[in-house]
Amino acid sequence: MEKPVHLDAVDINCDMGEAFGCWRIGDTDDASLMGLISSANIAAGFHAGDPNLMDRTVRLAVEHGVGVGAHPGYNDLQGFGRRRIDATPLELVNDIAYQVGALREFARRHGATLQHVKPHGALYMEMAIDPEFARQFIAYMRVAAPSVFVFCMAGSATERAAREAGQPMIREFYADRDYADNGSIVFTRDVGRPDPAVIARKVVRACTQGTVTTVSGREVAVPFESICFHSDTLGAFDIVRHMREALKAEGIRIAPVSEIVKA
Amino acid sequence: MEKPVHLDAVDINCDMGEAFGCWRIGDTDDASLMGLISSANIAAGFHAGDPNLMDRTVRLAVEHGVGVGAHPGYNDLQGFGRRRIDATPLELVNDIAYQVGALREFARRHGATLQHVKPHGALYMEMAIDPEFARQFIAYMRVAAPSVFVFCMAGSATERAAREAGQPMIREFYADRDYADNGSIVFTRDVGRPDPAVIARKVVRACTQGTVTTVSGREVAVPFESICFHSDTLGAFDIVRHMREALKAEGIRIAPVSEIVKA
Amino acid sequence: MEKPVHLDAVDINCDMGEAFGCWRIGDTDDASLMGLISSANIAAGFHAGDPNLMDRTVRLAVEHGVGVGAHPGYNDLQGFGRRRIDATPLELVNDIAYQVGALREFARRHGATLQHVKPHGALYMEMAIDPEFARQFIAYMRVAAPSVFVFCMAGSATERAAREAGQPMIREFYADRDYADNGSIVFTRDVGRPDPAVIARKVVRACTQGTVTTVSGREVAVPFESICFHSDTLGAFDIVRHMREALKAEGIRIAPVSEIVKA
Amino acid sequence: MEKPVHLDAVDINCDMGEAFGCWRIGDTDDASLMGLISSANIAAGFHAGDPNLMDRTVRLAVEHGVGVGAHPGYNDLQGFGRRRIDATPLELVNDIAYQVGALREFARRHGATLQHVKPHGALYMEMAIDPEFARQFIAYMRVAAPSVFVFCMAGSATERAAREAGQPMIREFYADRDYADNGSIVFTRDVGRPDPAVIARKVVRACTQGTVTTVSGREVAVPFESICFHSDTLGAFDIVRHMREALKAEGIRIAPVSEIVKA
Repeated sequence: MEKPVHLDAVDINCDMGEAFGCWRIGDTDDASLMGLISSANIAAGFHAGDPNLMDRTVRLAVEHGVGVGAHPGYNDLQGFGRRRIDATPLELVNDIAYQVGALREFARRHGATLQHVKPHGALYMEMAIDPEFARQFIAYMRVAAPSVFVFCMAGSATERAAREAGQPMIREFYADRDYADNGSIVFTRDVGRPDPAVIARKVVRACTQGTVTTVSGREVAVPFESICFHSDTLGAFDIVRHMREALKAEGIRIAPVSEIVKA
Repeated sequence: MEKPVHLDAVDINCDMGEAFGCWRIGDTDDASLMGLISSANIAAGFHAGDPNLMDRTVRLAVEHGVGVGAHPGYNDLQGFGRRRIDATPLELVNDIAYQVGALREFARRHGATLQHVKPHGALYMEMAIDPEFARQFIAYMRVAAPSVFVFCMAGSATERAAREAGQPMIREFYADRDYADNGSIVFTRDVGRPDPAVIARKVVRACTQGTVTTVSGREVAVPFESICFHSDTLGAFDIVRHMREALKAEGIRIAPVSEIVKA
Repeated sequence: MEKPVHLDAVDINCDMGEAFGCWRIGDTDDASLMGLISSANIAAGFHAGDPNLMDRTVRLAVEHGVGVGAHPGYNDLQGFGRRRIDATPLELVNDIAYQVGALREFARRHGATLQHVKPHGALYMEMAIDPEFARQFIAYMRVAAPSVFVFCMAGSATERAAREAGQPMIREFYADRDYADNGSIVFTRDVGRPDPAVIARKVVRACTQGTVTTVSGREVAVPFESICFHSDTLGAFDIVRHMREALKAEGIRIAPVSEIVKA
Repeated sequence: MEKPVHLDAVDINCDMGEAFGCWRIGDTDDASLMGLISSANIAAGFHAGDPNLMDRTVRLAVEHGVGVGAHPGYNDLQGFGRRRIDATPLELVNDIAYQVGALREFARRHGATLQHVKPHGALYMEMAIDPEFARQFIAYMRVAAPSVFVFCMAGSATERAAREAGQPMIREFYADRDYADNGSIVFTRDVGRPDPAVIARKVVRACTQGTVTTVSGREVAVPFESICFHSDTLGAFDIVRHMREALKAEGIRIAPVSEIVKA
């Protein structure tokens, strides 16, 4: 399972349903994006999303054959889940279980099975660096969702905890983020409007060579099974269209992780 | 299934987990009550309850062999779900699905199956009088929770909708509320500290005769399969203890609805 | 103060700061609108707005010499304050006082005085038809904000309560809403994209003749001192630009109510 | 203003109005405590308190001649403001301004002037150690509340920022908390039920000698003008009664800071 050189198939995941009530974010609507991805990380009400939107987004994903994932976040609508809250692992795992259950109910209603769980924003990063939080989260998954994939960063505490416990796990390649020399992402709140062609080349290289060029120009290995991009990145629609065409040209199939990886 | 004269067995249900964060309500703690009831309506975060409390309360119910129920309410912590919000049936059913799913996740985590759903407070009353809301709620249950009991008031729109659609349904007798001549409850925000002995006699009469004495002194029929009382009624602990002893003296067994009624 | 035939000056008010966190609504940004209005109804955190946005919006209003108003709503972010909550007048007035105080603090910080209070959405409508709620709200204003204008609908309970108690009061003309024959507004959640030229003619007629044409074609009197339009109406920017030009062509000055009406 | 040896008068402050909706905390009610303190830190809706409770608590304080203070916290009802949120100083100061304004409106309504501002829980501690946050908070106070006292810990960044900017400032002695050798408090979530007599002696010693005994047995100087205790400490009522009697026996007058310190 080590270096995924020249992938035959890859998953494309994207955050979805991240509006709230009557408000919107980004310049791309979920309906047009849903046909271009294979896995949807659907906001579950704490950092974004509301029950009405969750219902609509899950239905939209099911209609497009897109894998349904829960996208739990910190309980902070105002901060969009981007601000760390100093809670205990126990509290955070309960918050996650609450959101996963809520999202899963809409999946059940629309005849779908929960494919994956991917924590959002600051919660994703917190789990990546806190082994105890990662361990408790995976322990909950082992009991309540043993065949549900956990999406994570290669090299993170989340990956290690999932691997140790035998939880199905997927590593991500971040199409619209820059990489540092140590293989981690250079986080920034403003990624501007990236060039879709540049991203497409970067993604193809990652899929065929298993590497990415860092901000300092080095070439580092990036093991992954799913490509992540963000619907609130400016030009998200063009980004994913270019990416799909480039992957197709290389003969790489796009499919939900539940189809390309056996849990 | 009509007049349940002299029940052999009856369920006792009570709202549980209705604290929030570090706050408490009422003078009785859930841990001491849980051993005395057979079905728990567990608050799911909108009118009361938080993920940590939900996890603890579900576990407590499971440990006591108490049936686990979801107790969804209006999204109004400050009003404790007692204030009607002018939302559409679609919005309300999505709110309910969200809460049911969240609660069900904690049940799954603790090895339990969701036994029932009972809307809380103003939401319970709204569904009782709004046939379209009741219909949409039952339609959701038919799809997502077809074998889960719906708790309701005899004669309510909820009962009718459940009956028409074939959803398992349980009618309640309200031990700590007064009845009007038409068989409905006289709602009041302050029930004072009712006399446990009086309540016990009222409950036994309902179980053995199938009737209750109204506030005007009339005797009316009350079909039911579960006895409801409220943990925030003053003296709740004494109320349920007296009730249990009186039922036992009459040879009436207390058990979760999942054991005494076949769904 | 009766029929305001051929106004010399008129106020233009608009809801402002109705985003939340990282989300937006409508197609027009507040910064471009602020230079075209004379009074801003600034969301105060319950239906929209957050402390950061309130601070920025108040500052923006002050920089443009626009009158600063508080725009309190029902405590329902998800519903954008458009869903009535069945709370008591006492509870609602406390909710309003809370929001007015919060908004006023940002005004104080930026060297401004609170010019007016205008309830939002369903709360505005509820006050218009509930005399006891209107009375209690005005009683609060008499004590805590005796020289602050109350914005209301002509003929509403709010207008009557303000008039009886001597609270400064401003009646509104709704530029982007249709009128019924009784002079009230035809509420709709979707007003489409109205024609700016049509609205401009309607506004000029109201300012010069004191009348409006209803949906059935009748001509009814509309007393008012301020023109209201909504920033989330599609094409809001064009609407207000046309309106301003048309008013200017008629020699009608646009100024905050605090300048054209003595409290 | 240095070492306040043998105070003639001292303020006693206590957190008040920290319930929410229908929930309560601690075993002491505010009505009985209010007659025994001289300054109330009133929760303003973010970590506890709601508009109805704020209105009642401010009125209660005014009726008892108690100084009215705003007690802003992190926006985290579930965590009672005890969990740090990773927000910027700008965001936190806006949150504080919002809450101070809301509380101040109820003070205005009941004919009172805001006497002081005291951040709550984790927000109080964060400001104590973050000079930039303290500086921005004091900058806001200088503009919007230049004669309102800031309550803080001796030696904190808050104290330094207030002193540098010339903002009226009050240092606190924590009656129901233990002290470390460096003069800071040993924070714990569970202080048990402390002995009122022990606390009374500790407070008298602090007022007459200006010192406190630390957990390791050392005697350290503690400059302060106000004594703080917590209404959710078990036995809070007995604690403050003993404290008052002991201070009276020493001839030390109890009065709001607005009476004993000139701003």
